Amino acid sequence: MQRTTDELLADVACSLMRSYSDNEDFGRRTKPMPDPDAVVQLFLDIRRILFPGYFDGGVGCNADTDVCLLEYIGTVYWRLARQIHNTLHAENGGTCECGPTGCETMALSCNYAREIISALPEIRRKLLLDVKAAWRRDPAATGYDEVILSYPGLFAVAVYRVAHELYKLGLKSMARILSEYAHSKTGIDIHPGAKIGESFFIDHGTGVVIGETTEIGNNVTIYQGVTLGALRIDKDADGGVVRGTKRHPTIEDNVTIYAGATVLGGDTVVGRGSEIGGNVWLIESVPPGSKVLNVPQIRKK
Amino acid sequence: MQRTTDELLADVACSLMRSYSDNEDFGRRTKPMPDPDAVVQLFLDIRRILFPGYFDGGVGCNADTDVCLLEYIGTVYWRLARQIHNTLHAENGGTCECGPTGCETMALSCNYAREIISALPEIRRKLLLDVKAAWRRDPAATGYDEVILSYPGLFAVAVYRVAHELYKLGLKSMARILSEYAHSKTGIDIHPGAKIGESFFIDHGTGVVIGETTEIGNNVTIYQGVTLGALRIDKDADGGVVRGTKRHPTIEDNVTIYAGATVLGGDTVVGRGSEIGGNVWLIESVPPGSKVLNVPQIRKK
Amino acid sequence: MQRTTDELLADVACSLMRSYSDNEDFGRRTKPMPDPDAVVQLFLDIRRILFPGYFDGGVGCNADTDVCLLEYIGTVYWRLARQIHNTLHAENGGTCECGPTGCETMALSCNYAREIISALPEIRRKLLLDVKAAWRRDPAATGYDEVILSYPGLFAVAVYRVAHELYKLGLKSMARILSEYAHSKTGIDIHPGAKIGESFFIDHGTGVVIGETTEIGNNVTIYQGVTLGALRIDKDADGGVVRGTKRHPTIEDNVTIYAGATVLGGDTVVGRGSEIGGNVWLIESVPPGSKVLNVPQIRKK
Amino acid sequence: MQRTTDELLADVACSLMRSYSDNEDFGRRTKPMPDPDAVVQLFLDIRRILFPGYFDGGVGCNADTDVCLLEYIGTVYWRLARQIHNTLHAENGGTCECGPTGCETMALSCNYAREIISALPEIRRKLLLDVKAAWRRDPAATGYDEVILSYPGLFAVAVYRVAHELYKLGLKSMARILSEYAHSKTGIDIHPGAKIGESFFIDHGTGVVIGETTEIGNNVTIYQGVTLGALRIDKDADGGVVRGTKRHPTIEDNVTIYAGATVLGGDTVVGRGSEIGGNVWLIESVPPGSKVLNVPQIRKK
Amino acid sequence: MQRTTDELLADVACSLMRSYSDNEDFGRRTKPMPDPDAVVQLFLDIRRILFPGYFDGGVGCNADTDVCLLEYIGTVYWRLARQIHNTLHAENGGTCECGPTGCETMALSCNYAREIISALPEIRRKLLLDVKAAWRRDPAATGYDEVILSYPGLFAVAVYRVAHELYKLGLKSMARILSEYAHSKTGIDIHPGAKIGESFFIDHGTGVVIGETTEIGNNVTIYQGVTLGALRIDKDADGGVVRGTKRHPTIEDNVTIYAGATVLGGDTVVGRGSEIGGNVWLIESVPPGSKVLNVPQIRKK
Amino acid sequence: MQRTTDELLADVACSLMRSYSDNEDFGRRTKPMPDPDAVVQLFLDIRRILFPGYFDGGVGCNADTDVCLLEYIGTVYWRLARQIHNTLHAENGGTCECGPTGCETMALSCNYAREIISALPEIRRKLLLDVKAAWRRDPAATGYDEVILSYPGLFAVAVYRVAHELYKLGLKSMARILSEYAHSKTGIDIHPGAKIGESFFIDHGTGVVIGETTEIGNNVTIYQGVTLGALRIDKDADGGVVRGTKRHPTIEDNVTIYAGATVLGGDTVVGRGSEIGGNVWLIESVPPGSKVLNVPQIRKK
Repeated sequence: MQRTTDELLADVACSLMRSYSDNEDFGRRTKPMPDPDAVVQLFLDIRRILFPGYFDGGVGCNADTDVCLLEYIGTVYWRLARQIHNTLHAENGGTCECGPTGCETMALSCNYAREIISALPEIRRKLLLDVKAAWRRDPAATGYDEVILSYPGLFAVAVYRVAHELYKLGLKSMARILSEYAHSKTGIDIHPGAKIGESFFIDHGTGVVIGETTEIGNNVTIYQGVTLGALRIDKDADGGVVRGTKRHPTIEDNVTIYAGATVLGGDTVVGRGSEIGGNVWLIESVPPGSKVLNVPQIRKK
Repeated sequence: MQRTTDELLADVACSLMRSYSDNEDFGRRTKPMPDPDAVVQLFLDIRRILFPGYFDGGVGCNADTDVCLLEYIGTVYWRLARQIHNTLHAENGGTCECGPTGCETMALSCNYAREIISALPEIRRKLLLDVKAAWRRDPAATGYDEVILSYPGLFAVAVYRVAHELYKLGLKSMARILSEYAHSKTGIDIHPGAKIGESFFIDHGTGVVIGETTEIGNNVTIYQGVTLGALRIDKDADGGVVRGTKRHPTIEDNVTIYAGATVLGGDTVVGRGSEIGGNVWLIESVPPGSKVLNVPQIRKK
Repeated sequence: MQRTTDELLADVACSLMRSYSDNEDFGRRTKPMPDPDAVVQLFLDIRRILFPGYFDGGVGCNADTDVCLLEYIGTVYWRLARQIHNTLHAENGGTCECGPTGCETMALSCNYAREIISALPEIRRKLLLDVKAAWRRDPAATGYDEVILSYPGLFAVAVYRVAHELYKLGLKSMARILSEYAHSKTGIDIHPGAKIGESFFIDHGTGVVIGETTEIGNNVTIYQGVTLGALRIDKDADGGVVRGTKRHPTIEDNVTIYAGATVLGGDTVVGRGSEIGGNVWLIESVPPGSKVLNVPQIRKK
Repeated sequence: MQRTTDELLADVACSLMRSYSDNEDFGRRTKPMPDPDAVVQLFLDIRRILFPGYFDGGVGCNADTDVCLLEYIGTVYWRLARQIHNTLHAENGGTCECGPTGCETMALSCNYAREIISALPEIRRKLLLDVKAAWRRDPAATGYDEVILSYPGLFAVAVYRVAHELYKLGLKSMARILSEYAHSKTGIDIHPGAKIGESFFIDHGTGVVIGETTEIGNNVTIYQGVTLGALRIDKDADGGVVRGTKRHPTIEDNVTIYAGATVLGGDTVVGRGSEIGGNVWLIESVPPGSKVLNVPQIRKK
Repeated sequence: MQRTTDELLADVACSLMRSYSDNEDFGRRTKPMPDPDAVVQLFLDIRRILFPGYFDGGVGCNADTDVCLLEYIGTVYWRLARQIHNTLHAENGGTCECGPTGCETMALSCNYAREIISALPEIRRKLLLDVKAAWRRDPAATGYDEVILSYPGLFAVAVYRVAHELYKLGLKSMARILSEYAHSKTGIDIHPGAKIGESFFIDHGTGVVIGETTEIGNNVTIYQGVTLGALRIDKDADGGVVRGTKRHPTIEDNVTIYAGATVLGGDTVVGRGSEIGGNVWLIESVPPGSKVLNVPQIRKK
Repeated sequence: MQRTTDELLADVACSLMRSYSDNEDFGRRTKPMPDPDAVVQLFLDIRRILFPGYFDGGVGCNADTDVCLLEYIGTVYWRLARQIHNTLHAENGGTCECGPTGCETMALSCNYAREIISALPEIRRKLLLDVKAAWRRDPAATGYDEVILSYPGLFAVAVYRVAHELYKLGLKSMARILSEYAHSKTGIDIHPGAKIGESFFIDHGTGVVIGETTEIGNNVTIYQGVTLGALRIDKDADGGVVRGTKRHPTIEDNVTIYAGATVLGGDTVVGRGSEIGGNVWLIESVPPGSKVLNVPQIRKK
């Protein structure tokens, strides 16, 4: 005899409830954790602080910029503190009770939030250099405004520069939420653990992958489809992956890497001022000033 | 003499109206059809059912999970039924009148919606295995939560596992709306017709393409930029494309395919346990245990 | 002694305010400029005009289509006029005062908005051809509706056809906001300056790059990962990039370019009816009817 | 020494936390309860079912009305079930575990939700009569549509007719959320416990109060500022109010009560066909056919 | 045997569908009609035009006020035209086809929309006088801004002044949607047909009713709870109400009417400069300069 | 010759622009001012702090209440500070520059915001007493939850208790925005300047007016339609109204005032424990323990 819809829905609900119970803390969260939407919104509000007037519906808070700025910074501070607290709590557990000495995890979270806020002026300074780099290196750019308003490379780098601050404080899941947000919007996947210098420019960007232990100097330019990745994944005796080693390459100052090139390996160093051609597959170091080109074979019928 | 703006706007409107009339049912829809926004929202609500607590603003419906779950499932059921009805109607026409035996298309739609709902526990079981696979294979992963919250590969596979159920019921346009949504968010393009086994992991993901007739075994890992595609498109005597044949490769259990590799053709089988290197272009079968590497030519100046 | 949070936040605000002042009109906007969200919304509303019934929640404005259409066109006209004005103003400055002869910049903006509106019927005609091309060339397509509802290639081409009209009027930053929006949603990066013929089809699409001075004929098909780019960037005596030259290739009628191929250079012409194979790297012209294939070296262990 | 802002905010938070703890279940809710916003939204969706085409943005779901209707009814059913469950749970406690016989409270809630849904056709029948009554009795009415679209009296009666069904099932807090919603929108305060006959018309409405134990016959008309209230509130020996007695008047068929009149007391009966004049203060019964007028004293200087 | 939920829901749907069919064009709308939400939003946007800077989130469109203003006016114009068209269509029927001479109803609608737009400067002039009147007559007012931002009387009068323009064009249902919106927000019920002079002030306002054929001179002040209403409703031989006669009083210049007073009847004239005391019930004319007071009887125990 | 629509719209825009210019700072705001929507949202967020779990969609922030609370309080603090700053700025002008000693107006605003935050625990204490009073005095109340969720009297008093704190700091326009918001939602108009004791209960509420200089003791109950108002408005020699005097009555402890009663005059004192009957018109003091009843004349035909 066929079950009615009500019975079927109730059965499915019970079945799911059992799965929730059987996998406590795996695939079901009942404790505080960072909220992806809230973390992304924090970045967007930080971007409004970093580039005032560009992302405010064309009007901005002209008449009272400084007060408005304080409101923005102050509310970002408290919202950051909560997301940081939830991140720490999700990772480390621990209780947070209201008492004479306050909540330890919350106090730590506030300190971390202060670190992020304190970093904003320096992040802005670097992003203005990134904007200038884009303008100087892209012949299609019509001006600084176009770069700020519409370049996916700048967007991804802006996200990275904020996410990297979270990463340095050990807030890896918040940092990764942000980097995957940028990845989703731009196709550019910069791990927040990477170290990237000043005046960095990613053109077009789709398909760029920059791994966790990559180090990039100043004045580096990268085109779409470039991978700065791991050569192999080391496994330990048990077959588990080995975590935390330097697995991704080092790119020195003034290097340009053209579209589709792949540079792999933690020992691989691309020397200062080198050019890596399109679609090149590079798994060993090259000295400063190198030009590495792919030589395709073409068969024409 | 120049037309006034009003005249011009009216002329454009008339011109468009004529185009609407001239192309009845092509580029203009006046009958029910699936609504892309509604279909995407259905997936997002299903995801909240599959991973409770992760995508609810950090709070979830803790205190009354089971009741809340029933409400979610029940409303998803009815909204699914309507979208399915509109899909069937758009494809097959037919009227739906209210009578003693009810509306046939609607009855069928309800049956289909019940099928989807019934599949949710099994989809959750598989997705938990996919989460574990990501954690075991990615040295940068900090835990299960990070995978669920931020891995685009898991997002795309979650969409695929739901879309595949729609596809199996013949609801292709709903399935495709979902797969293109995942494609848009992640750069990963998995056709809902593909058959994918358990413990599947896509790392980074941007640029991955998995074609309609692809078959993938268990414990397979795929990196960004991998294409599992068609070698050629067969045309019939009239020059029309031939539809429905097996055009995409078969990937057996425990295979790893590195970034940028391309595997093409419906007869191409990658044998169990093989590794396909980065940027390899593979259009023929390889036996189990193969390692296939690309050997780039590099010219250094 | 540690600063209190209030002091710290105020210091950060002051530091940012100084940065705003030091970089007047760079990284801070106090004058009118195009609003990215408004420009994107304009495109979405134009898409509802071009494909009525597909993106209206499944219902559309059936009962009063023509009046509804006039309202849509009329409001799009005025909203376009404002964004165009702000774009012109941001680029050229100039004041806009209310007087007997009106505001010159605004009058120009209205003229430009009329141009865009006037182009809509022709854009719809071309997009219907693009829809047909997708259906004829993709064996996985189930019908016109699926193409309109879910094909990223069609989405990107629809954005391009609107953005190209803005580009032709010199409204480059608005055009670029749109093209980067499509890029973000689809991974397809078509510069609005490119010239693209009729019946154009991009399959899958992720990673496609079509540069500013590319010229594409009729009946051209392009697969994912194809780059139609610049071979090199010319610099002038001062090391600045040279802007405005033809830097990207010409693709003649009936050409097919398969996944991952790269065609570079302003002098490179792919002759009528040619096929460029997957992953081919092409930096010189090929005559009509050419078939160019990549011949990978494979080493199997 | 002044506290820093951080210290002050933490102190306030601690102080509030203590207040939350000291008043468990009073002024703080941690268990499921009806959500006011969800309950109001349920009414609005029910109104779309009762008056299709009026409150759907001018378009409605024309092309697929019956399917759309099923989706509306089905989702309203499940959302109702949850709110009813939470209401019962908040009032009666009890646990709800997923088991072979399911959750008792949830089963009861589903039964109650079915009762509400079953009542909708009868509610619509009565509301159509109310619309006709408004049209017949208000010389300013231009047609049925105006009554449905803009008459606050009809709005309040529509809310009442739905809330009364909830009240009859004992779901008093849900019923009261709805009646206060109507009160807030219209200034008309009809307690959901009142019994109101057919063809009821409230003109203008602001300030109308109809108490819990009021009984109103058919074809009754009431103007703004009319109170059908309690004469006094009985207190028991302990000074507590006595609840549940008939405290409000009975209004028989075909009565008209003009603006500002006050009729008080559970024993007060306004006989069939009577007219109660503006600002009359009535605390005793009047026989059928009475005309009761206020005779104000006017002093003109 | 009990019906399953699915059967019950389907039965209810069928029952409602039958009710929809049985009452064609009564309680179900399938043709265009004014959309209440759209009409209200039009008023709110007009208010932003009338009081720039007050209702724009504290920022307004400072930098480009005149362009922004044109965009507002232009989009309001087209949205008005559509709502007017739908209103005319709902009332008069008639088809609207796209042809060489365009659609007659739409042409008329555009003319009406132009009338409304043309009236805006005069409406603003009058509203500024109303603001001044409030400031001069209310000792609690702290300034013009407070009146504009928070006085319900001004809100209701602003709605009235716009709705009256619609009423004069015969667009009664649109006018009534607006007046009931103001009624709902403020408790002040001004029929859009009333004629109201300059420098009008309503204090507090809750419960004020001003009927359709009321005439009010300049410099009139009215307090909460005042009714300017009909004495009786005339019925014709068939018992139907007689519509369109002057049923509400005339209030001459410089009159003040205190809280709770009721003035009724189409022949009742309150002469220039009179004061009507609180709670007075007035159903006959008083000469200029009258002071009419209520003399309550008080019994103190 | 008729103007085109474009010309007409431009003319209207110019006309309005002239009106804006002619009335600088009257009916047009270009400087910072309090934003009504932001101020109302602040109250709603404060209400979530005062009654946690009631207005959070039925779920609340259970798992991390204290952290969540700190985030709420912290963000409310900064948003308050901005609105206060804008209020002070709009009233007093003055510049606010970023410097070593910071901005004076902003420092003052922060101090004021701290005052409001500090008052929250005391406001909660009082509101819990108000909830208890409603429960004890209203026989229709089913429990505390119903009072908190749906009683308009409690809503209005909650708004008053917050607005009164703003009023005490001199932030009158912010206070009035809030009180008019409550007025709009409930029909209860409590001026934020009134002084109201503990355990205050307003039943039904529509039409209640409590003037600026009213003083109300503890345990007072008021029914709908009660006015505590000014007897007359004093004018100075120039005919301007005299502001700031005590114009509204004093209500001592344990008084009950029934529906529709009007108590007027700054010298009027209703003595402790008195009852004022429905519709009574009272303009002189009554001693403690008085019962004042209205004795209506009824004429029955």
